Amino acid sequence: MRDFLPADIRRREYVIGIIKEVYESYGFEPLETPAVENLETLTGKYGEEGNQLIFKILKRGEKLEQSVAEKDLSDLALRYDLTVPLARVIANHTNDLPKFFKRYQIQPVWRADRPARGRYREFYQCDVDAIGSSSMIVEAELCEAVSEILERLGFDDFVIRVNHRTILYAMLETVEIEKEKQTDALVALDKLDKIGKDGVLKELVEHEINENAGLKLLDLFANLEMAGNSQSLSQLSEFIGENKIGKQGLSKLGEILGFANLENIKIDVSLARGLSYYTGAIFEINVPDFAGSLAGGGRYDRLIGMFGKEQIPACGFSIGLERILVVMEERGMFPKELNDSSADVLVTVWNEDSIGASLRLASELRRQKLRVLVYPEADKLGKQFKYASQINVPFVCVLGETELAENKVTLKNMRTGEQEMIEREIVSERIKI
Amino acid sequence: MRDFLPADIRRREYVIGIIKEVYESYGFEPLETPAVENLETLTGKYGEEGNQLIFKILKRGEKLEQSVAEKDLSDLALRYDLTVPLARVIANHTNDLPKFFKRYQIQPVWRADRPARGRYREFYQCDVDAIGSSSMIVEAELCEAVSEILERLGFDDFVIRVNHRTILYAMLETVEIEKEKQTDALVALDKLDKIGKDGVLKELVEHEINENAGLKLLDLFANLEMAGNSQSLSQLSEFIGENKIGKQGLSKLGEILGFANLENIKIDVSLARGLSYYTGAIFEINVPDFAGSLAGGGRYDRLIGMFGKEQIPACGFSIGLERILVVMEERGMFPKELNDSSADVLVTVWNEDSIGASLRLASELRRQKLRVLVYPEADKLGKQFKYASQINVPFVCVLGETELAENKVTLKNMRTGEQEMIEREIVSERIKI
Repeated sequence: MRDFLPADIRRREYVIGIIKEVYESYGFEPLETPAVENLETLTGKYGEEGNQLIFKILKRGEKLEQSVAEKDLSDLALRYDLTVPLARVIANHTNDLPKFFKRYQIQPVWRADRPARGRYREFYQCDVDAIGSSSMIVEAELCEAVSEILERLGFDDFVIRVNHRTILYAMLETVEIEKEKQTDALVALDKLDKIGKDGVLKELVEHEINENAGLKLLDLFANLEMAGNSQSLSQLSEFIGENKIGKQGLSKLGEILGFANLENIKIDVSLARGLSYYTGAIFEINVPDFAGSLAGGGRYDRLIGMFGKEQIPACGFSIGLERILVVMEERGMFPKELNDSSADVLVTVWNEDSIGASLRLASELRRQKLRVLVYPEADKLGKQFKYASQINVPFVCVLGETELAENKVTLKNMRTGEQEMIEREIVSERIKI
Repeated sequence: MRDFLPADIRRREYVIGIIKEVYESYGFEPLETPAVENLETLTGKYGEEGNQLIFKILKRGEKLEQSVAEKDLSDLALRYDLTVPLARVIANHTNDLPKFFKRYQIQPVWRADRPARGRYREFYQCDVDAIGSSSMIVEAELCEAVSEILERLGFDDFVIRVNHRTILYAMLETVEIEKEKQTDALVALDKLDKIGKDGVLKELVEHEINENAGLKLLDLFANLEMAGNSQSLSQLSEFIGENKIGKQGLSKLGEILGFANLENIKIDVSLARGLSYYTGAIFEINVPDFAGSLAGGGRYDRLIGMFGKEQIPACGFSIGLERILVVMEERGMFPKELNDSSADVLVTVWNEDSIGASLRLASELRRQKLRVLVYPEADKLGKQFKYASQINVPFVCVLGETELAENKVTLKNMRTGEQEMIEREIVSERIKI
């Protein structure tokens, strides 16, 4: 876990600011949930590996003493993602929320994972979800919103890969992989990028899945790798034939492609996504120079029902803030202004007696909308100027005896070195130029 | 711990926005630290009661199995305040930070306390601290900044109470309370507001502190309760006589009062503040209709040295966000605009075939800086209008067959009921009026 110093925060806030602005322009509303959830809310929602990575909080006081004997040491845990808490909130607050609820949430999550490049134990997710509708309008808008964010940040080479869970299951049924082995098969196929064709086949065989079935699927994937979307749709349709759930999935994918006004969206039949709660369309966004995905999401129509009486349809997208920041940093995509000093001017202190006067000048300048530092000690003036250069502040004000007597201020431009004694009233306009 | 729905977040973000803006105008820079700290960083910094309230995180995997035997189950804990993590950051990053470092930090902290009105187990602190200077310029600026925030939020009846730790110790020495009993005495005296004079005396006697000494202090407090600042300074000076640390404290208080251009700052000799790390000036801000304080802080010149080689002076102020929100809510201090719908317009969907056209119109309007919702299903129009009233959106766009054929849009003002078919290009200007 990391500390974020001011320069880090400025970059993070720049990205978060754009994310919020775009989400709000689509009518998404902010939501926040506590860092700590009941352990049972989280358990069983993220698959076996996920369960291992949950940070659990130790029980306290008497509760703990009883528990040490029973080895049941925890009843609370740190938030692992933003989707499960959202599902819990929707189930708890169904009556306080509109029928169609669009929310965004930008908060940290915690996973007891081994840290790696762009992967931390505490990291921010920027989630956007639309609750209450099964229409593919939702999927189309989510793709458009996330796409707009990436464009506004300056990305021009990302691809939105899209697939559908029911098409995946239809393909597995078509090659006659039994129901109970379908999850293992998906996990293996999902690794095609990382472990290659032979790796996938090996893993399938290890799970006692027919190698021929695997070969048929990998052939299909290879055929469709360079295909356009309409070609993919027609070849998939041929492959799965009359499979009912598969045909539904294909028609949903067709709708998404038709609704979303996007050129960089591409059907990728090998996309599976790890999380077990997805039930419909799934998405991932990638750029060529980063191995993982920048964003991912999908439809989960059966998660909210796990926390309440009602089954409510939902679909969402999650942007990985740290990954976006890593790529933007490497590509030099941040605006130069973010490196500027965070203050506009430093007011120096002439001597002990004039401290009050310097503080008054600072207040005056702040009322004129400037960000003003006061040098916090009556040091020698040379030392104060040296500090001003170190922190890279663009202007310095001196308020000495002459200046005070004449009700003026000496203003030094630290970039040009120019210095002049001027009326107090015009200091702020000189600085703002 | 609580979920924050959109209306809550809007109020919180309004307050946080003002806090950030004022702090930045004083040249404070943002810092964030992880939610999780090493347990040993936190232990022993908050007094005995504080230690009990720390949320500890359970060790994981093998580490845990070894530990259950040893009953040493935790090595990490949740952040308890923002001051101790700041001290750790300063000690770790001394070379990356300027000599004088002014930072603000707005993040949640966690305490395993019994929840009460305005007190939660997860709550936000808004801290501002100035590191590296021992000058009272720092104290004066902190008081001015926090005062400006409260004024901008609309508070006009708050008082900044100020005292100094060394004056407190000098008073205790003057009435001959021994060093090892001074902390107990301060804890008792700090409760004067809550338990009254008799309560304090009782608690002093329980700690075997001379009742007469207590009476002398309580008499002094009573005498000074209505006194002005200069009267307090002179009476205190008389009371402590030649006590060296007391005289230093008095001169520091005098400097703060002289530097800070504030009318509502008042010396309160009974103010002690619980936290053990304060070494100099201490502050608290109160309003008449709230029992606790809205903000509090002080100087802690010996905390950073606990984490590094160097002893670095520091002073800070912490605003309690939840308390501010409680009082503002009760007094009705939030601007009305915060209750408005978060979208400017809802675009309806005429039928399945026109979904794409509605989405296109929504994109057009977003490019014109409107916040636009699209009704997410091809429901009957009546149902869509009913939803629009429910969520209180001010305008609705209809894009039916006639509108599409004529390249127009029907715009309904939901407040007046007026409705007209207009050119697409002028929709946004009609809405913005």
